[in-house]
Amino acid sequence: MKTVIALSSLLLCSQGFAVDPLPSWNNGGNKQAVLSFIKKTTTKGSPDFIAPSKRIAVFDNDGTLWAEQPLYFQAIFIFDQIKKRAPQHPEWKTQEPFASVLKGDTKKALAGGKKALLKMTAATHANITTEQFEQSVRDWLNTARHPKTKRAYNEMVYQPMLELLEHLRAKGYKTFIVSGGGIDFMRVFAEETYGIPPEQVIGSSLKAKYELRNGKPVIVKIPELNFIDDKAGKPVGIHQHIGIRPVAAFGNSDGDFEMIEWTTSGDGPRLGAFVHHDDAQREWQYDHPSHIGQLKRGLSEAPKRNWLVLSMKNDWNQIFPSTDEPAKAK
Amino acid sequence: MKTVIALSSLLLCSQGFAVDPLPSWNNGGNKQAVLSFIKKTTTKGSPDFIAPSKRIAVFDNDGTLWAEQPLYFQAIFIFDQIKKRAPQHPEWKTQEPFASVLKGDTKKALAGGKKALLKMTAATHANITTEQFEQSVRDWLNTARHPKTKRAYNEMVYQPMLELLEHLRAKGYKTFIVSGGGIDFMRVFAEETYGIPPEQVIGSSLKAKYELRNGKPVIVKIPELNFIDDKAGKPVGIHQHIGIRPVAAFGNSDGDFEMIEWTTSGDGPRLGAFVHHDDAQREWQYDHPSHIGQLKRGLSEAPKRNWLVLSMKNDWNQIFPSTDEPAKAK
Repeated sequence: MKTVIALSSLLLCSQGFAVDPLPSWNNGGNKQAVLSFIKKTTTKGSPDFIAPSKRIAVFDNDGTLWAEQPLYFQAIFIFDQIKKRAPQHPEWKTQEPFASVLKGDTKKALAGGKKALLKMTAATHANITTEQFEQSVRDWLNTARHPKTKRAYNEMVYQPMLELLEHLRAKGYKTFIVSGGGIDFMRVFAEETYGIPPEQVIGSSLKAKYELRNGKPVIVKIPELNFIDDKAGKPVGIHQHIGIRPVAAFGNSDGDFEMIEWTTSGDGPRLGAFVHHDDAQREWQYDHPSHIGQLKRGLSEAPKRNWLVLSMKNDWNQIFPSTDEPAKAK
Repeated sequence: MKTVIALSSLLLCSQGFAVDPLPSWNNGGNKQAVLSFIKKTTTKGSPDFIAPSKRIAVFDNDGTLWAEQPLYFQAIFIFDQIKKRAPQHPEWKTQEPFASVLKGDTKKALAGGKKALLKMTAATHANITTEQFEQSVRDWLNTARHPKTKRAYNEMVYQPMLELLEHLRAKGYKTFIVSGGGIDFMRVFAEETYGIPPEQVIGSSLKAKYELRNGKPVIVKIPELNFIDDKAGKPVGIHQHIGIRPVAAFGNSDGDFEMIEWTTSGDGPRLGAFVHHDDAQREWQYDHPSHIGQLKRGLSEAPKRNWLVLSMKNDWNQIFPSTDEPAKAK
């Protein structure tokens, strides 16, 4: 009997039936739709077959590949950097938004809106070389821990999305991150955490300049905005970096609306999907109103545009990688 | 006897001795240096082994992968587009630099410098969608012919560099274009001509915006400079697009100096090289002074920096693909 089971498992495996590429996804319509899209676009002879060079899938990062509560993780990095560098900046004690950060009142620090955020970004991301910045992110990832889970931030990634990224790549898709987050910030961990190499990460950026410091060439980040990769900026960022329209797009907020719209309005088979944060117990529950990751227009238009709404609560049987097998951290 | 030769060829082939990956390169120090760099960085156990994810090679385009005489080919495209669109622009008859272009005096048209060039670029590259622009480049490549060789412009590519690109990729290198040319212009032919996909093309660009036209999403190129990918801009473009420092860089002019400097000043094995246009008979002979592709500082500093100077005349036994086997044109 055992032999029969072993033999039939072997048979099933070799025919590709038995191995579930998305074990953290519950069986159901959404999992089926995702798998069937990948299958039909990569099976030779299928009327929906897509040539390998056109198999481009794009993913938002914050709230889509990793968590974004209680605040964007990069904002937490910024606050931590301000605290770390405060001894070199005595003037920050009385200067907003830095003074509020140092008092622990991050809400007040962020109340200054974009202008305050840019000030803090410039103070922590600019006037240093790209190598110094990379090291500061690496050090932070190695030491900082999430206030709720106590895990490293790059372990707060969604296991079902890691499986999806891997399955897409196994089927010849190129996977890209297209995020409002900082491009240099994400590149530090994207390859090790998601298997996405630096050149396939698109994000917001500061301008940079090339110069010689003591005869040694360096690239220095300068405190001037280069590009905001959010909302209508996402299709533009996709165009400037990738140069062709993706065929699949995954997001979680209205900041991803245009990216999914651009992706799904091309000819042929297309896949657009929102990750819906509806699991208060295992993650967080929010869509709108929300101070972060607001999802309103997307939720209301998804059905008529045939975009999937993936329920974290119902579609995923696991959220984060199990602690026994930690995510690939630095 | 025949059998013996066939058998020994087979034996040599299977051991990797007999197949020359660079048949258009003459044997000599430069070919040896290029092959030995690739071998030592991709052979497991070699002290100079480079992990596959770090194997990034960058190539200038004009004068390095394809010809650039008598003028940058994209400038010829611009002039041709102005002539084509002139009926819709009666005002161009009296308006510089357009008037000179229409009279066939391209020298006078270019005498206006950067300002004139930007005007002509805006008139031919902007206020159209990315798809319309792509089509205009495709149509031009299909019909325009080089004034000297009468070949399609994307057949004016260097056979030795095509072989090098292919050999690098066969050894696990990712190949990128890093050119002062327009990113959207080059992407139209880079994949078919060089095997370089759109996302691995870096170039100069205009800004762009996302909008709905009659309810259909489009990306529109706008007449505002986004980035100039030349000189010190090249390392910056490399950083913003690729995110890691390349290990090999090929150029042909002082506009490539900083790119090669940035590439070769990293740790570990590095390869920097200039293609030297010294073959008046089969191509063109120029370095400095030159109205295009000026190479002065590069020539003088190459020896002390251990950068190769590849002589088209001595190092290459073939310049363009043979007409019997035309390059992959559109």
